[in-house]
Amino acid sequence: MRSITVHSPATVSNLCCGFDILGLAIDEPYDIMQLTETEQPGIVIRHTDQYNLPVSPTENIAGVALQSMIDAVGYTGGFEIVIEKQIKPGSGIGSSAASAAGIVVAANALLGNRFTKKELVNFAMDGEVIASGARHADNLAPCIYGGLVLIRDTPTLDIISLQTPPLYISIVHPQIEIKTSYARKILPTEIPLKSAVVQWANVAGLVTGFLQQDYALIGRSLQDIIIEPVRSKLIPGFDEVKKQCLEAGALGGGISGSGPSLFMLSEKRETADQVASIMKNEFDKRGIENKTYVTTINDSGVKIVNRS
Amino acid sequence: MRSITVHSPATVSNLCCGFDILGLAIDEPYDIMQLTETEQPGIVIRHTDQYNLPVSPTENIAGVALQSMIDAVGYTGGFEIVIEKQIKPGSGIGSSAASAAGIVVAANALLGNRFTKKELVNFAMDGEVIASGARHADNLAPCIYGGLVLIRDTPTLDIISLQTPPLYISIVHPQIEIKTSYARKILPTEIPLKSAVVQWANVAGLVTGFLQQDYALIGRSLQDIIIEPVRSKLIPGFDEVKKQCLEAGALGGGISGSGPSLFMLSEKRETADQVASIMKNEFDKRGIENKTYVTTINDSGVKIVNRS
Repeated sequence: MRSITVHSPATVSNLCCGFDILGLAIDEPYDIMQLTETEQPGIVIRHTDQYNLPVSPTENIAGVALQSMIDAVGYTGGFEIVIEKQIKPGSGIGSSAASAAGIVVAANALLGNRFTKKELVNFAMDGEVIASGARHADNLAPCIYGGLVLIRDTPTLDIISLQTPPLYISIVHPQIEIKTSYARKILPTEIPLKSAVVQWANVAGLVTGFLQQDYALIGRSLQDIIIEPVRSKLIPGFDEVKKQCLEAGALGGGISGSGPSLFMLSEKRETADQVASIMKNEFDKRGIENKTYVTTINDSGVKIVNRS
Repeated sequence: MRSITVHSPATVSNLCCGFDILGLAIDEPYDIMQLTETEQPGIVIRHTDQYNLPVSPTENIAGVALQSMIDAVGYTGGFEIVIEKQIKPGSGIGSSAASAAGIVVAANALLGNRFTKKELVNFAMDGEVIASGARHADNLAPCIYGGLVLIRDTPTLDIISLQTPPLYISIVHPQIEIKTSYARKILPTEIPLKSAVVQWANVAGLVTGFLQQDYALIGRSLQDIIIEPVRSKLIPGFDEVKKQCLEAGALGGGISGSGPSLFMLSEKRETADQVASIMKNEFDKRGIENKTYVTTINDSGVKIVNRS
């Protein structure tokens, strides 16, 4: 029976001012997923990692996303999914999105490539909704499209790829737990119009900075005066870590997705390395176990690495 | 004594979702301003139009902006300003900004071109504040820079020029009075976070549409779910006019600045002409005197047309 193996990348959503509308695929970490046709109908899921994620197809994100595509196609065979998760669940860098996105890209390849990327995002959302409780595409879309992605409208999936200049991304995952649902619950439901204007001015600046390859403008625009002040309180040491990263020359950064991971963008590799060691040092000092990455933009999204 | 004549263009600020941060200079209408050195210190102002604007230098926008520059330079002579206003005051297409911007560009040319465009915006703001009561740059900046301009941050005047594809702009000025201060007072001070996200997604889409020359994306993004629903109630027939303009093929549009003028962007001249006649027809039907323009983007901003 045929088999496809994919690498499904981590993603940084929001990018400060771009709450719920921007997401960026990164080269590391990524999940490794193998999808194999079986004669026996139904979906069998196996994990080769230590995270004890559900194996029931109706409770596993990849299972639900795959079933959604199977139903649309009318495929009568079965599938076995083997997942080696390297993106730690709950880290805030799109672990659940990687599961959903990886499986639909793999399945599309086995089922005759009949779906567009946009349609794949739609199937993947059916899976991701069981993790986040909401149909959001700001991790899924960059995971499938690659690079930096704007989701202008979620209901119609108006997804636009944005060119970026080369960037280095430093990530730290402090091993504290923040539930996405809680991180969403603490947000204000109403905000001052004045603050909203500041935020959308920065969104406009950020998008312009990327498209015009203007690093300084990207840096000036990487501000979030609405979400970050609320969510950063859940991350011990946030203000100090951020301050030191900026002093070390990072363009800017903040909370990745709903956290707890932090990200910082840098123009140069050496800066990004230094920023990562600052991140590590600061959380070490606070006795918080942490993992850091220095990575680059993943322009391709989910990648097929093996067919057999 | 030396003399400079400038054309100072009208501007469309906000552009729907870009409230307080975007502005566009247009080729027509424009004010004609002549600035002449005088030996007698002080500022003398003359008008050759019918609008009866103040001639006292401390009450006239151009006078205040000019005085601000004179103070900075330490110029000890005087100036005569002759203004032929063609942008009707209170029309919502940057009439007061044109006065302030035109005079500082002219004065800079006579005083040795010592100021950057950003500094000129700053002087002009000193003038415009007496009209609007607030230091806003979303008309002034495009008037001085030309083209489409993003004001990412008003206090530091972080002004960014954005490339646009060719566009035709239809404008209608229904002759009803809306005070800028009233149009600002009726805005909500708090808005739902959900609405703000929709708005900044559209801002991001609009900026991307301009920079990537994507007309369809510009059209999809020209939406304003926050300001327009409130201010459009001040303009009789707004919803019907807008609906008909979109049906005629306009990409999108809405209220220019704080109104009462409406603007619509079109990809083709013929569409823009048809849109303007729809605008005219709709306000005629309602017995509201009106004036329409079909114009293009003014890429140069305030232009020196004569030196003597």
